[in-house]
Amino acid sequence: MKMYDLINKKKHGAAMTEEEIVYLVKGFTAGEIEDYQMAAFLMAVCFNGMNTEETIALTMAMAESGDILDLSAIPGKKADKHSTGGVGDKTSLILGPMVAAAGVPVAKMSGRGLGHTGGTIDKLESFPGFNVNLPEEQFIEQVTRCGLAITGQTANLAPADKKLYALRDVTATVDNMSLIASSIMSKKIAAGADVIVLDVKVGSGAFMQTIEDAKRLAELMVQIGEGVGRKTYAVLSDMNQPLGCAIGNSLEVIEAIDTLKGKGPEDLLEASLVLASYMLIGAGRAETEEQAREILLKTIEDGSALDKFAELVREQGGDDSYVYNTDKFAQAPLTEELIAWEDGYLGSIRADEIGMVSQMLGGGREKKTDSIDPRVGVKLFKKLGEPAAKGETVAVLYANDAGKLKAAKERLQNACTITKTRPDVPNHIYGVIGG
Amino acid sequence: MKMYDLINKKKHGAAMTEEEIVYLVKGFTAGEIEDYQMAAFLMAVCFNGMNTEETIALTMAMAESGDILDLSAIPGKKADKHSTGGVGDKTSLILGPMVAAAGVPVAKMSGRGLGHTGGTIDKLESFPGFNVNLPEEQFIEQVTRCGLAITGQTANLAPADKKLYALRDVTATVDNMSLIASSIMSKKIAAGADVIVLDVKVGSGAFMQTIEDAKRLAELMVQIGEGVGRKTYAVLSDMNQPLGCAIGNSLEVIEAIDTLKGKGPEDLLEASLVLASYMLIGAGRAETEEQAREILLKTIEDGSALDKFAELVREQGGDDSYVYNTDKFAQAPLTEELIAWEDGYLGSIRADEIGMVSQMLGGGREKKTDSIDPRVGVKLFKKLGEPAAKGETVAVLYANDAGKLKAAKERLQNACTITKTRPDVPNHIYGVIGG
Repeated sequence: MKMYDLINKKKHGAAMTEEEIVYLVKGFTAGEIEDYQMAAFLMAVCFNGMNTEETIALTMAMAESGDILDLSAIPGKKADKHSTGGVGDKTSLILGPMVAAAGVPVAKMSGRGLGHTGGTIDKLESFPGFNVNLPEEQFIEQVTRCGLAITGQTANLAPADKKLYALRDVTATVDNMSLIASSIMSKKIAAGADVIVLDVKVGSGAFMQTIEDAKRLAELMVQIGEGVGRKTYAVLSDMNQPLGCAIGNSLEVIEAIDTLKGKGPEDLLEASLVLASYMLIGAGRAETEEQAREILLKTIEDGSALDKFAELVREQGGDDSYVYNTDKFAQAPLTEELIAWEDGYLGSIRADEIGMVSQMLGGGREKKTDSIDPRVGVKLFKKLGEPAAKGETVAVLYANDAGKLKAAKERLQNACTITKTRPDVPNHIYGVIGG
Repeated sequence: MKMYDLINKKKHGAAMTEEEIVYLVKGFTAGEIEDYQMAAFLMAVCFNGMNTEETIALTMAMAESGDILDLSAIPGKKADKHSTGGVGDKTSLILGPMVAAAGVPVAKMSGRGLGHTGGTIDKLESFPGFNVNLPEEQFIEQVTRCGLAITGQTANLAPADKKLYALRDVTATVDNMSLIASSIMSKKIAAGADVIVLDVKVGSGAFMQTIEDAKRLAELMVQIGEGVGRKTYAVLSDMNQPLGCAIGNSLEVIEAIDTLKGKGPEDLLEASLVLASYMLIGAGRAETEEQAREILLKTIEDGSALDKFAELVREQGGDDSYVYNTDKFAQAPLTEELIAWEDGYLGSIRADEIGMVSQMLGGGREKKTDSIDPRVGVKLFKKLGEPAAKGETVAVLYANDAGKLKAAKERLQNACTITKTRPDVPNHIYGVIGG
């Protein structure tokens, strides 16, 4: 087999065999196939696509390029959840404790984030002492005992994907459905859960800008997951405005805790409930979404989800008193309000721009080596479509530097409009695929 | 400017500006743009193409990546000719002396060949002592004095093309018209001639398999040449069967000499006359093809073209007595005839396969470092459509090794068919573009 022939084959629109895809992925991971040949192949894929069989083969080849986590020592069906990424998305911190409290083990490996805020493990580091580097045995032991652990990567997960993604990122070959789907699913499959629930975001703050694209991606990922024997669901959810009201690391942790206390924003609770419901359904803990919601809401009402979150923090070396008293989190030294400049409705609040505001304030990374300030970010006091009277607070900025604060405020204001008539407010959830 | 954005732009089908193309070519040649990014860009070009303006800009950027030869010290219009490559193509050895004898200076830089036989300078090395490495001043001085010199590259011609071609060759991105045309024309433009005549081959033994493709390439190259102020013509000529009867290095030199003596194969003479005619027309030495042919045929009749060839050999250190007595060329130790196995007509004689036969015998290179045996090759005694009675000689193989000879004979036989009815014989020349 020669890489030249495989490039040429894809260039002419033919489908690769499983054997050819394994050759490609193995050779590339081992450094035997050159970057320039893989780059040409990837660009040909962007033009000619891959069919479902090819995409499944690519996913499995990438999953098998590293360790596949064996969670079989943990009793019952294990559930995992993945989001394609959005602004203000802290659902993992809410649904993890809820699902675990409902009796379904959640073994979650998360990455650090690049972009507007950190990833889930960056957010958890807002708790002093929180350890995000659990060795594999400890991770499995903790899930077995408490039903919940959240850690950075313990294993060498899908190194082929890591290498391939780095190449796609510099060759303008990121935006192909098969490449996106296989990248996400290879890591999820390697992470070992029996049930995979995918949160596919749609809108200005998401990678998928249209419902049609999001649906295609969701369907493909469900096909892949089911194709390799994992119970898989995909929820299409809105990302035209940030999810919830808090954007920034400790601000989001606090909002997640508030939600577990039953006083979170409605859209955030709703998104968390839908995602968590399919984790329960997939694991056989509930049969319908209604049943699942009832179980999950009860974990909020009886405080068991909040206690599970505190247990998680304690188990991983953090100070769980913060969970019960969120005033303990370090505060940003500077704050500034954005005030409604006229009467009307909040007509738009672009998620992507709000994400950039958070990043500008120091809440996100541009480069892997950047450090994150957990204190900074934005808190929205108005959501899309809500009335805003002149002089009312629209949002508050939390900052550590006056210069950054000034620039961020300007950008925040430009990201919002106030309109005379109430704008259409999109649904939080557009639909669920799979099951 | 960022390479990522340029890849993405071409991926989405937009045309590059001249400034962007200069950035691409300069950056790549300097090693500042990575191979993998250029590979992705090239694949995007294969799908989305380049318009004429982009192709001209690419050609000039590549030509200007190295030295552009200054032939202005040589009086009059200088003519050059380039072939897209065919089997048995020795026209340079014929038209060079004819055109020079007709008073138009020919300053020809040739490469060594990869493939079925060597390039023009490999063929010339069949003359003992022939020097193909003329320093630039000597090259220009010789053209000024004799009207003809043929040398390997004296200057650093279009290094960007060299680097780009090497990358295209391993990434399945060779077969795009703009990339092919700019690669050829960048070198021709850098070689400095005022008149460029292109021989675009069509058929089984050529890169262009259909007349339509060949015409598109020819038109594009003429547009490029004229676009940068060079008088440019393209001749579309047949390459379904080898040109002339000899394939192999010294065999081809002998056939070229025979043609200059007025006893060459008709198709070879015809191709040489047409190409040479446009060199004369472009240089203002003739106004019509008829006029040019008359002038050129006279150089054969009066022996001035043959003498010019002998002068070339002598000037470059070779033994010119070989020109007048071709028996002096070293002979291959082994020969074998292919005999017609039934009565009929020579129905096909695939040029590409005959080329492979020559290469198998040691007449061509697979790798740059391979050496060539000038003695080996094939001589056809029948051309397409000629009657072949059972027992008549179809071809003779010239070899230096019995094993190679056996394999080559088998391949040669498979490349030929004998048919009961006379096959259609394609024209030697399909048309001329430009002027």
